[in-house]
Amino acid sequence: MPQFLNSRDADFDVRFTALLGMKREDSPDVDEIVAGIIADVRARGDAAVLELTARFDRLELTAQTMRFTPAEIDGIAATVPAAERDALELAADRIRAYHVRQMPENELWTDPDGATLGWRWTAVQAAGLYVPGGLASYPSSVLMNAVPAKVAGVKRLAITVPTPDGVVNPAVLLAAKIAGVDEVYRIGGAQAVAALAYGTGSIAPVDKITGPGNAFVAAAKRRVFGKVGIDMIAGPSEILVIADADNDPDFIALDLMSQAEHDESAQSILITDDDAFGRKVADAVAARLETLERRAIAGASWRDFGAVITVRDLDEAAALADRIAPEHLELCVADPEALSEKISNAGALFLGGFTPEAVGDYVGGPNHVLPTARSARFSSGLSVLDFMKRTTIARMTPAALKAIGPAAETLAKSESLEAHGLSVRVRLDKLNEG
Amino acid sequence: MPQFLNSRDADFDVRFTALLGMKREDSPDVDEIVAGIIADVRARGDAAVLELTARFDRLELTAQTMRFTPAEIDGIAATVPAAERDALELAADRIRAYHVRQMPENELWTDPDGATLGWRWTAVQAAGLYVPGGLASYPSSVLMNAVPAKVAGVKRLAITVPTPDGVVNPAVLLAAKIAGVDEVYRIGGAQAVAALAYGTGSIAPVDKITGPGNAFVAAAKRRVFGKVGIDMIAGPSEILVIADADNDPDFIALDLMSQAEHDESAQSILITDDDAFGRKVADAVAARLETLERRAIAGASWRDFGAVITVRDLDEAAALADRIAPEHLELCVADPEALSEKISNAGALFLGGFTPEAVGDYVGGPNHVLPTARSARFSSGLSVLDFMKRTTIARMTPAALKAIGPAAETLAKSESLEAHGLSVRVRLDKLNEG
Repeated sequence: MPQFLNSRDADFDVRFTALLGMKREDSPDVDEIVAGIIADVRARGDAAVLELTARFDRLELTAQTMRFTPAEIDGIAATVPAAERDALELAADRIRAYHVRQMPENELWTDPDGATLGWRWTAVQAAGLYVPGGLASYPSSVLMNAVPAKVAGVKRLAITVPTPDGVVNPAVLLAAKIAGVDEVYRIGGAQAVAALAYGTGSIAPVDKITGPGNAFVAAAKRRVFGKVGIDMIAGPSEILVIADADNDPDFIALDLMSQAEHDESAQSILITDDDAFGRKVADAVAARLETLERRAIAGASWRDFGAVITVRDLDEAAALADRIAPEHLELCVADPEALSEKISNAGALFLGGFTPEAVGDYVGGPNHVLPTARSARFSSGLSVLDFMKRTTIARMTPAALKAIGPAAETLAKSESLEAHGLSVRVRLDKLNEG
Repeated sequence: MPQFLNSRDADFDVRFTALLGMKREDSPDVDEIVAGIIADVRARGDAAVLELTARFDRLELTAQTMRFTPAEIDGIAATVPAAERDALELAADRIRAYHVRQMPENELWTDPDGATLGWRWTAVQAAGLYVPGGLASYPSSVLMNAVPAKVAGVKRLAITVPTPDGVVNPAVLLAAKIAGVDEVYRIGGAQAVAALAYGTGSIAPVDKITGPGNAFVAAAKRRVFGKVGIDMIAGPSEILVIADADNDPDFIALDLMSQAEHDESAQSILITDDDAFGRKVADAVAARLETLERRAIAGASWRDFGAVITVRDLDEAAALADRIAPEHLELCVADPEALSEKISNAGALFLGGFTPEAVGDYVGGPNHVLPTARSARFSSGLSVLDFMKRTTIARMTPAALKAIGPAAETLAKSESLEAHGLSVRVRLDKLNEG
């Protein structure tokens, strides 16, 4: 059974705060092992990567066979059934159409003092995308990472995907092909992250690494951060559904389960203004948990971290949502737009009863790489901006320097940075002579 | 003497690569100490912060006197000389005018399938700004962090600034006042970062922490990352100047020294297409180093990390600049705009002979918090976006769900996520019944 909370109860604040503070993930401390792997890859390059791949993935490769050839990719991708191919292409088209709109504008203007100011956005030159192997080898994640990178203009996009015992998910290769990925390597784990960050004889280094992974991959990404950029370190997935009594309890139950089935550490929370409806949803979840394929995982998640919260009204729901700062937020209420205006901390909003989060996971268009663990308070989902950087631009004219240079000189002196001040002063003196 | 490199030399690539790979910073490993301080502040709140402040800053405070009162801020800020006050106000106005233009747009559109898609930007609700004490207590850094936060719409902006022995830089308090900072605390070190991240009895927690600091502050920011957002961990400062022979060598020398005087680990590099000009600049640096107040620091930086690189032409200079990915890049050439188009990796560009970097440090308008250590390959300077987050929006209509829902169901099945698929299927079935 999940927790049932009611905002009218005397102990509500205590219990809600405890719910917010729940530790859901107990990552093993693999940092020392990962540090050793990274050092090995830096020192020995391909040889280290090949040895580690033989050991962990039971796969003997060479520097030549580490990378899928275009013909291999074509051949394996061709085995994907037509329905899945069509679905991936529809998803890629929609994700592309959404992310193209995120392309930022360059700006350049002249201010009243005559200074030209602005900025210019450029794409990261090379990016690497980590794709997990095995059961979590999701083609949808390939699209969600690779399409924005290519929209941003990344020239060289490399994927690493471990293929334990040589097994690869053909849909992953098809998604890579559809997204325009340039290189795909049969490697994984911390050694793949190290190879992308530092390069090896046969893998050129990249500037940015994104994509999900296990504890080893997460630890490796943390360690190479600074040498390269990384995306967020994602925690277990979460959904918050705010629903009134005008919903089918079974629909809401399935939405809650679509997070719970990801991971025993996932969290699904329902907030409703109708206590009886909340009970009906919990009953519907119980019924679904009898037959769902992933009922062991989903059941554990719901039992340990699930919650049904009854509130007085939707304003209260909005205030609680802002404290939860959920990764995914469904608003299944009569006027979801109005309710959404009252909430600022959420990774992604799904409005109305016809927008199950699963649509957003695959084909909605917005990205499904989203901030977890309450980090929507300060961060955003993946976007084209994650594959771009902004260079600021300033150009002074003699008149502009005369107008604002003395203030710079004054501040430099006050901060005891003499050369800063002099670099302005010598130019002002020359202008004043001239 | 700095290094002299010439791209015509046989060993140029080796030497240039070595220059890029130079380790300039040897941070002490204070992570264990910092972990202890953070744990202590989490456990004991104000009491821990007050004890640590007494120990490290030799300052006895109470929960009441930890925060500057508005009257104290007014009184101390009033002691700043008028010229400095005017300069700070001019700087704040220009920084504000620049950053207002960075405010991102919300978007909402209806796609051909009838789905409503878009995103909305909102400000981080509370932010904390770390300001170092002592010599590096720069009012300009207060403006560069606080003004963008306030432009973004951050409601609550708290500053921590250590005041060892009770000494505070009045210009820091004035800058805080000008920028509209809401709270200023007399605390510093890892304990201040912990207090901002986790809160204490008298300091409410924030969502994001920015600002420079020593090794303890940097380690604390790394440790609280995830609980709160942080800005970059800045390394030692750098400047690259690309200059042709039509410049006054002394001006360029001062520009190089304006980085070198920050820190013995700072790096100043000149690239020129005229070998003789490069020698003249080096001579001018040597002359300036005889009299500069901070000649010990600037001289060590120039000796250990400085470089003068002669290239065949400006195209070659641009290619090298992209590999260096400098924090600051001055283009002192006849057509700096044309040259700038060939460079994509740089934190900030300063175009033409009248734009010494020092103008940008204080009053130009663009931010002076910029990516160091080659991270301009994948990251950008501080902006209003660092104090905002984006929530994506999706709303399906029945028609939109009918159009794209089946593809989501197909992909969910292919990823063995049954509840995902069912959450779409039950809605489609209901629509098909209706």
